[in-house]
Amino acid sequence: MTTRVEVGLRGREYPILIGAGLLSEASVLRGAIEAQDVLVVTSETVGPLYLERVRAGLAGKRVQALALPDGEVHKTLGTVARIFDAMVAARFNRDACIAALGGGVVGDMAGFAAACYQRGVDFVQLPTTLLAQVDASIGGKTGVNHPSGKNLIGAFHQPVAVIADISTLATLPPREFRAGLAEVVKHALVADVAFLDWLDGHLDALLAQEPAAVAYAVQRSCEIKAQIVAADERERGRRAELNLGHTFGHAIETATGYGDWLHGEAVSVGMALAAALSQRHGWLTPADVGRVRDVLRRAGLPITAPGIGGARALELMGMDKKVLGGRIRLVLLHGLGNAAVTADYDPDALAETLLEHFGAGAA
Amino acid sequence: MTTRVEVGLRGREYPILIGAGLLSEASVLRGAIEAQDVLVVTSETVGPLYLERVRAGLAGKRVQALALPDGEVHKTLGTVARIFDAMVAARFNRDACIAALGGGVVGDMAGFAAACYQRGVDFVQLPTTLLAQVDASIGGKTGVNHPSGKNLIGAFHQPVAVIADISTLATLPPREFRAGLAEVVKHALVADVAFLDWLDGHLDALLAQEPAAVAYAVQRSCEIKAQIVAADERERGRRAELNLGHTFGHAIETATGYGDWLHGEAVSVGMALAAALSQRHGWLTPADVGRVRDVLRRAGLPITAPGIGGARALELMGMDKKVLGGRIRLVLLHGLGNAAVTADYDPDALAETLLEHFGAGAA
Repeated sequence: MTTRVEVGLRGREYPILIGAGLLSEASVLRGAIEAQDVLVVTSETVGPLYLERVRAGLAGKRVQALALPDGEVHKTLGTVARIFDAMVAARFNRDACIAALGGGVVGDMAGFAAACYQRGVDFVQLPTTLLAQVDASIGGKTGVNHPSGKNLIGAFHQPVAVIADISTLATLPPREFRAGLAEVVKHALVADVAFLDWLDGHLDALLAQEPAAVAYAVQRSCEIKAQIVAADERERGRRAELNLGHTFGHAIETATGYGDWLHGEAVSVGMALAAALSQRHGWLTPADVGRVRDVLRRAGLPITAPGIGGARALELMGMDKKVLGGRIRLVLLHGLGNAAVTADYDPDALAETLLEHFGAGAA
Repeated sequence: MTTRVEVGLRGREYPILIGAGLLSEASVLRGAIEAQDVLVVTSETVGPLYLERVRAGLAGKRVQALALPDGEVHKTLGTVARIFDAMVAARFNRDACIAALGGGVVGDMAGFAAACYQRGVDFVQLPTTLLAQVDASIGGKTGVNHPSGKNLIGAFHQPVAVIADISTLATLPPREFRAGLAEVVKHALVADVAFLDWLDGHLDALLAQEPAAVAYAVQRSCEIKAQIVAADERERGRRAELNLGHTFGHAIETATGYGDWLHGEAVSVGMALAAALSQRHGWLTPADVGRVRDVLRRAGLPITAPGIGGARALELMGMDKKVLGGRIRLVLLHGLGNAAVTADYDPDALAETLLEHFGAGAA
């Protein structure tokens, strides 16, 4: 069964197709990709698993492939330059399409390359990780890291389609699957307490990768994200709510050099911190915070911050994109399922929360 | 006297201000730049001449400056990375502004950096060359070169304002001034035969840099370009007419390695070739072609192609962004002041024109 979620951007609507085995259905791939010239950008891990079935689905088109090294450390301008080189070597032009086959790192780089090659070519997301299926592949944020911060260089470039084949999750390492669950929990916390109730009741089924449960978790995440993105593509307002846990999380990722922590793991800790800070303001009850921590823990996700020091964490948060006028804007929770972007919090409470969770740091 | 030309993009209108001494008027700079944090990107040549007056005009803001090496050979992803580094080092965020002080190369790179830094920051053009004032600074095309072709990597990112201080042209090398005239002539050939008449009568005044003549040439060029860009920002249709002479010209620039030929010089030869090919189809009279060649020659511009060989030229034109479905689309003239983008020409006539002008090439 294929579920279809529409991303309703005016004039640039696109579908998210969710189902088991979609990459093996040629009609799905060919329906999504109009271009005759296709560069499939994948990773050294995902390519050997799924590239051949994608090639088969695109039979009759001119298809080139490029496998990039895995990992957030390679999400750089230099790696994106390899995609440009591959497009030029194939003599692909404005009417070509770049397909991203892999996780969020591949999608971010392939999407950024598609945004910039000849000032913009078509782009299709074929996400193969849970994180990419529920979050990264949707909404058109593309980009690369700078040594000083995550995703500091990028573009908004919407895909023409997202094809989420949940069968690919069978080959995903369990740790990566759990990291993807962090973004699923995030969508529930941001916008839908009923979805949080559903997660409470289906976490075991999700962790066992029961197809119906996985398909619903992906679908509901996509619906929530699509609705928010459609209302605020460029993140001038509400879209920033989707950064729940991310400002804290980016600090962890930057401090630890992108690698020890998976993105979803850092976001998990970040959401626990956002919940704690929300509680300090009286916006969540202790029971709410306990529920957030419990669902994350049951999902196998960390909720304890690394000991990088509260002051260092604050400094790293200061370079985050969500700073406005020098004051860090944060996503906090006004009740479960109700996120808000705000600079209207107590800075001392923030400092205390960071100190409590990140420790005093190196002497 | 300041002339104001509006670029009427719906929801993102911006003004082009044209006049003598504008960079010395703080009210002009401060009126155009709302941001408190400004990175002025300039070149090693232009910076020493005009950076201090721009800094003075922005007194009270946090201003950083970065001088890039001059020349098209430096218009690369690697140089743009230096702009990102400067933004990060200054701790500038989404609310910062990048100002491009210099010619087209600086504007293309600063604009591309502004498009990509944190997925888009404000951007102001302060063009100091005639080419940048009449063409490159308007319309939001930004980008860098790839070893295999010009402007293969880039973005559409509109400035919030263009401030064209024609006094800066006094320090421009005469050869560069003449190269800028090529784009002025282009605007006349593309869209306004009356402007071509005016140019016929004022070329000597322009070459003598009489302010009234220069101001009008800049103004009329901006008006023509602004009108075309407003109707077709993303170059899906008519905007491609502004590439008159450029497909031929890019082949020259690529073959000679960006450096021997100034962009405007290559475009001048390209327009002579486009006129010749138009004549072969009966769309221009021999007298029309003579008039094109005459105005270019009187402007001190080359109209003779380098001997790179017709076959090589055709190959280099094939990698151009204006290829559609494998067939090279060209901008040709259906009468003076009336350009058209077309794939409906005789390929043999193209090959013969290239052979005639570029020669047989190396044996």
